[in-house]
Amino acid sequence: MKYLVHMDVKLPVDLPASEAAGIKAKEKAYSQELQRSGKWPEIWRVVGEYANYSIFDVGSNDELHDILQNLPLFPYMEISVVPLAKHPSDVKD
Amino acid sequence: MKYLVHMDVKLPVDLPASEAAGIKAKEKAYSQELQRSGKWPEIWRVVGEYANYSIFDVGSNDELHDILQNLPLFPYMEISVVPLAKHPSDVKD
Amino acid sequence: MKYLVHMDVKLPVDLPASEAAGIKAKEKAYSQELQRSGKWPEIWRVVGEYANYSIFDVGSNDELHDILQNLPLFPYMEISVVPLAKHPSDVKD
Amino acid sequence: MKYLVHMDVKLPVDLPASEAAGIKAKEKAYSQELQRSGKWPEIWRVVGEYANYSIFDVGSNDELHDILQNLPLFPYMEISVVPLAKHPSDVKD
Amino acid sequence: MKYLVHMDVKLPVDLPASEAAGIKAKEKAYSQELQRSGKWPEIWRVVGEYANYSIFDVGSNDELHDILQNLPLFPYMEISVVPLAKHPSDVKD
Amino acid sequence: MKYLVHMDVKLPVDLPASEAAGIKAKEKAYSQELQRSGKWPEIWRVVGEYANYSIFDVGSNDELHDILQNLPLFPYMEISVVPLAKHPSDVKD
Amino acid sequence: MKYLVHMDVKLPVDLPASEAAGIKAKEKAYSQELQRSGKWPEIWRVVGEYANYSIFDVGSNDELHDILQNLPLFPYMEISVVPLAKHPSDVKD
Amino acid sequence: MKYLVHMDVKLPVDLPASEAAGIKAKEKAYSQELQRSGKWPEIWRVVGEYANYSIFDVGSNDELHDILQNLPLFPYMEISVVPLAKHPSDVKD
Amino acid sequence: MKYLVHMDVKLPVDLPASEAAGIKAKEKAYSQELQRSGKWPEIWRVVGEYANYSIFDVGSNDELHDILQNLPLFPYMEISVVPLAKHPSDVKD
Amino acid sequence: MKYLVHMDVKLPVDLPASEAAGIKAKEKAYSQELQRSGKWPEIWRVVGEYANYSIFDVGSNDELHDILQNLPLFPYMEISVVPLAKHPSDVKD
Repeated sequence: MKYLVHMDVKLPVDLPASEAAGIKAKEKAYSQELQRSGKWPEIWRVVGEYANYSIFDVGSNDELHDILQNLPLFPYMEISVVPLAKHPSDVKD
Repeated sequence: MKYLVHMDVKLPVDLPASEAAGIKAKEKAYSQELQRSGKWPEIWRVVGEYANYSIFDVGSNDELHDILQNLPLFPYMEISVVPLAKHPSDVKD
Repeated sequence: MKYLVHMDVKLPVDLPASEAAGIKAKEKAYSQELQRSGKWPEIWRVVGEYANYSIFDVGSNDELHDILQNLPLFPYMEISVVPLAKHPSDVKD
Repeated sequence: MKYLVHMDVKLPVDLPASEAAGIKAKEKAYSQELQRSGKWPEIWRVVGEYANYSIFDVGSNDELHDILQNLPLFPYMEISVVPLAKHPSDVKD
Repeated sequence: MKYLVHMDVKLPVDLPASEAAGIKAKEKAYSQELQRSGKWPEIWRVVGEYANYSIFDVGSNDELHDILQNLPLFPYMEISVVPLAKHPSDVKD
Repeated sequence: MKYLVHMDVKLPVDLPASEAAGIKAKEKAYSQELQRSGKWPEIWRVVGEYANYSIFDVGSNDELHDILQNLPLFPYMEISVVPLAKHPSDVKD
Repeated sequence: MKYLVHMDVKLPVDLPASEAAGIKAKEKAYSQELQRSGKWPEIWRVVGEYANYSIFDVGSNDELHDILQNLPLFPYMEISVVPLAKHPSDVKD
Repeated sequence: MKYLVHMDVKLPVDLPASEAAGIKAKEKAYSQELQRSGKWPEIWRVVGEYANYSIFDVGSNDELHDILQNLPLFPYMEISVVPLAKHPSDVKD
Repeated sequence: MKYLVHMDVKLPVDLPASEAAGIKAKEKAYSQELQRSGKWPEIWRVVGEYANYSIFDVGSNDELHDILQNLPLFPYMEISVVPLAKHPSDVKD
Repeated sequence: MKYLVHMDVKLPVDLPASEAAGIKAKEKAYSQELQRSGKWPEIWRVVGEYANYSIFDVGSNDELHDILQNLPLFPYMEISVVPLAKHPSDVKD
């Protein structure tokens, strides 16, 4: 079941650089583990912004929320979620 | 080069059913040809709306505009385009 | 799996009264069948508006979209969908 | 009398963890007592957000405001309230 | 129980003048009957707009919705409702 | 001459409690004096928010601005003002 | 007493040219009479739009509403009004 | 003197094709004459939209408004204008 | 050449009172000098807000920007600018 | 390939003046180097704002993002990007 997720990162400008680096490293590891599992099949950078659009493929709303609220950057992000359905013109089966 | 495109269809409620059906059939054929070519790799229905989110993979802004303005439903849609870049955490090479 | 759905009805003011009545009767029957099935457990009128907030309880995004796009009033409504998850303070098990 | 309430929590990122934990514990106890009383029959997490949609069932606007402004998280939330009426298609009596 | 209600009238510009006059006359009679009953204690014109802000004083959300949806101008208005509570600084008892 | 005024209070979360209490006490006294003078005939709490809708009845725009900018909470509020006129359906003379 | 008024004209594209010309001629005469009376001291075109910003100088909210709702273009305009007060830095006495 | 202008074309879907073609042909000729004169140095299509961003280089606000309101598509466009100044980092003299 | 300028002042609530007073005194002097020069012919307070609407009359976009960015309150304001043209109904020559 | 980019600078008001000056000097050097390379052919100040509109001419979305995220002011800016295509009325070849 697919969802389009927009994540907009708002790191405080006075966050110490080392702390920011630590959070970003954890975020990257967490994201890549989920990408490899197939639950986070796509992630793109929005050009010009510290933000991404991602596709998630999970079994339920609860599973998606659990994944998102455990993002290391979660306290610093505004996230919005659009549930997706199969499009009748989609050629993939 | 990837773009996230949102298409929101606003067919006039008084459009004759046969005319609407004709436009939708052309739209489907046009979309599926582009999907098969690899230029329109993803299309999802937005749940509850006559709208879709799509990913396009084209060589330039001009090519994308050319594809979009030739959509049979183009005169009846509001379209917005977000240019995408590779995300540094993306595990795909 | 729960979703909060907002439906805002925009019937054209020049729609013949008998036609409007026919669509509304079909909408009511369709809604009540889904309510009785357990897939549409709650529906409330927004005070002062020709609109409702509803809770849907379905198995997937696809099932919800299929239900919504078959609403007899679908061509006359603006619909927005918010996916819901279990709240950690919810006392219901 | 029903109301749909949206609560969006904006905890300052520099709030000490122990203080935040204390407020959240009080919030949970307060919410669960009201849920058990029947005045707060539904609470759902918005997927991907530190926010909830809730249904309140109270005797008056004043009673609802009194409940909401005593939420331990009240100083840290943006709250919006939609008054609800019975829907003519509702099958529940 | 008080509510602040905003009504914005959007009469189609091609509505025949006699029909518009008939609806407005019914609206005025309906409004004045409710004003005299005490349920619609205040109505003000918004300067420069075909719109009003009103105060309603009714027993429930359902009663307010019933009053509003029976307004003769209801099909031509956008209405929004804000539930009000007693203010702690209010000097009226 | 009537005006609808919306006041939305945004006290900094780190304002010392005693200082906040002092400002609120001054605000209450100032408001009640104006209510008793007839210049501030109505004040209602917006349900669920630290905000109010008020009616002011003053002789001029200048007088209203003078009253509002002297509110002890003025530096912490977002205020918006809607000028009101007599409504042709108003039964009060 | 001054007010800043924004008027945005939305003439239907299918309004017959002669009818449109008649309304505009009446509008111009009505506006110029009020300008000469001193009640409408300033009117500017918004660059690129069929819209204007104007200053009105009248005795009350009621007088301003009466002037605005009698504009020949009133049924075709969206109007918004901002009440103005004397600025403490204004050098004019 | 430079201005950034955004033009969003909203042709009625029921405008006869020949009439639309006539207006567009006049628009193109009018635009190209101004481009060649140096007053309209840049025009770009917004990808995916029937809209453009343009740069105008004219002597005054009045001249710009005169140019814009004489666009053959003016009755069918929403136009917004941003006045531009020289940027201190601009390397062009 | 006229421009309508809206300035919304957002002084930090923790700015020391003496520092704020100093900036405001400079702002007043700067504004009054420009008013006397004829370049800032009108300034009005927005009722209920720490904001003003002003009319500027300058020779170019660059001159206006130069004036505005030198306002002592510039770092604390949100400013928006609307270029104005002569209105065809304006009776002033 | 052209893009319209809007950059809105939000420097914290408590950033030390010397630090701000250092960042701005680096920003200017970085911008001018890119202007001279042809990748940033236009930059204009938005009148009255600490913001600019710029045109970028680059080979890909990735190249544009790379340029933008390396702006010394990037952590202090809100940036939005509009992809542009050749306009059919453009007289330049």
